[in-house]
Amino acid sequence: MKPKIFVLDVDGVLTNGQFLYDQNGKSHKIFGADDSDALKLLEPFVKIFFVTADKRGFPISKKRVVDDMGYPLELVSSHDRINWIEKNFKLSETIYMGDGFFDNITMSRVGYSIAPSNSDPKAKDVANYVTFRQGGDRAVAEACMHLLEVFFKE
Amino acid sequence: MKPKIFVLDVDGVLTNGQFLYDQNGKSHKIFGADDSDALKLLEPFVKIFFVTADKRGFPISKKRVVDDMGYPLELVSSHDRINWIEKNFKLSETIYMGDGFFDNITMSRVGYSIAPSNSDPKAKDVANYVTFRQGGDRAVAEACMHLLEVFFKE
Amino acid sequence: MKPKIFVLDVDGVLTNGQFLYDQNGKSHKIFGADDSDALKLLEPFVKIFFVTADKRGFPISKKRVVDDMGYPLELVSSHDRINWIEKNFKLSETIYMGDGFFDNITMSRVGYSIAPSNSDPKAKDVANYVTFRQGGDRAVAEACMHLLEVFFKE
Amino acid sequence: MKPKIFVLDVDGVLTNGQFLYDQNGKSHKIFGADDSDALKLLEPFVKIFFVTADKRGFPISKKRVVDDMGYPLELVSSHDRINWIEKNFKLSETIYMGDGFFDNITMSRVGYSIAPSNSDPKAKDVANYVTFRQGGDRAVAEACMHLLEVFFKE
Repeated sequence: MKPKIFVLDVDGVLTNGQFLYDQNGKSHKIFGADDSDALKLLEPFVKIFFVTADKRGFPISKKRVVDDMGYPLELVSSHDRINWIEKNFKLSETIYMGDGFFDNITMSRVGYSIAPSNSDPKAKDVANYVTFRQGGDRAVAEACMHLLEVFFKE
Repeated sequence: MKPKIFVLDVDGVLTNGQFLYDQNGKSHKIFGADDSDALKLLEPFVKIFFVTADKRGFPISKKRVVDDMGYPLELVSSHDRINWIEKNFKLSETIYMGDGFFDNITMSRVGYSIAPSNSDPKAKDVANYVTFRQGGDRAVAEACMHLLEVFFKE
Repeated sequence: MKPKIFVLDVDGVLTNGQFLYDQNGKSHKIFGADDSDALKLLEPFVKIFFVTADKRGFPISKKRVVDDMGYPLELVSSHDRINWIEKNFKLSETIYMGDGFFDNITMSRVGYSIAPSNSDPKAKDVANYVTFRQGGDRAVAEACMHLLEVFFKE
Repeated sequence: MKPKIFVLDVDGVLTNGQFLYDQNGKSHKIFGADDSDALKLLEPFVKIFFVTADKRGFPISKKRVVDDMGYPLELVSSHDRINWIEKNFKLSETIYMGDGFFDNITMSRVGYSIAPSNSDPKAKDVANYVTFRQGGDRAVAEACMHLLEVFFKE
């Protein structure tokens, strides 16, 4: 397998999964160190896409992922995710990193899958690789180093 | 026992128990991933109610639970909670999930009770099930999967 | 020993020790569950005082401790703390709960001392009791239950 | 070796590495207890400098480090850091504390290096000392006590 696409979930992967509420609604998400730097090392090898099912927090995710990190971000529900990937890419060429309740469905069908250590247990059962680090605490950085080692070492 | 009601505390169960203060008072609470998705899987089987003793943070809890998740939320002090349940439902048909200092009183009298792993020790002593996950970090999602497995498996 | 006074530090004891900064300065502190409820159980037995060395975050601490919880709060530097206690109370009748870098000086001289589990190591070395829970995650609630058990059991 | 300079990274060292986003961008960073007090104990022995690669969060870091703690802070990318140190100080007289993805490069060339326990694994491999505490949870305070013990004990 030679992966060409890396699709990442936002909440719980690039964030620690938590979100702050004030009385007007969802106000903040919590991101962490090194993930942005590590993704740049993968850019020569794969196309990077982010997906999220979080409608209410979309403006926050968009600000971080699209405006500040420069990657495409699409609003795709957890249930539609496998179809969305299938429509846009070859499943066998796609790496998926997710943490959530329904992500095991997507993870079991793509070419390679990664889950942060604090993921839903079903996601961790199915993942090809479970990071030592948690989402929002260098899980994506660790995933990038792992992918460089496994797939893109010269 | 066939439970018909699922009553959940908000702080420490749906949140991680922490709240932010600025100089004007309580400003934010911290919620987490998957709990909202997992509760939807229980809706065919039980009625879901939230209770909270937090007056100052009520507008924040209401925004999350009532406006955004669509569940009823009532302000009920920890001491009145068992009476409130008794007045509104049958104790034997009620599942209660709580984490707090006085929740053991309520938990020892309902049909079935659940505590997140980071609960008050008395709550954990009394609970029928203690989740592996913490409040605001998928404890409610784990509780829902546990209840589906124990009570509502076809 | 029959304690009459319970003096508590704010940051790292009633909070998790962390504080948020935005570009205008210190904006938020993080408090947790059950501490306020548990302190009420001690009120029949001891007078409760809070001290803090945090000038910049004083309005936040004051809002929580004085306005919302109803306890006195004094700005006392870590170095002056033992003198401040000595001037106002009898050392032998005072319980002190602290977590910080210089708190071991105060803790070694009062009647009884408590440190949250995530305290500075020197504070933990000197404390009569180290809680299992961390500051801002029920450490004060645990301390209250411990004090009720050790000093005020009928 | 007699160190004369202590250079510290901000994010993940003085903070816990996390940053909050709202829909307008990076809004808050999370600092912790005791680090500021402990650094003062080192002032008679070394000059203290902070560096950061975080452009978007620079106003937040500047407010904390420069305005409130009173130390110089310079914007230096991770890759330029070793050159920046070499230009300004003697490498052999410099202690560097960092946690990030590229900090191992800097750490392997300075006189002495320290990494918080939650650092990137490569940084921890190279560091002369790895703290027990995490960034934003007394890692800097522990580093200061360690340096006093190793280099500046009378």
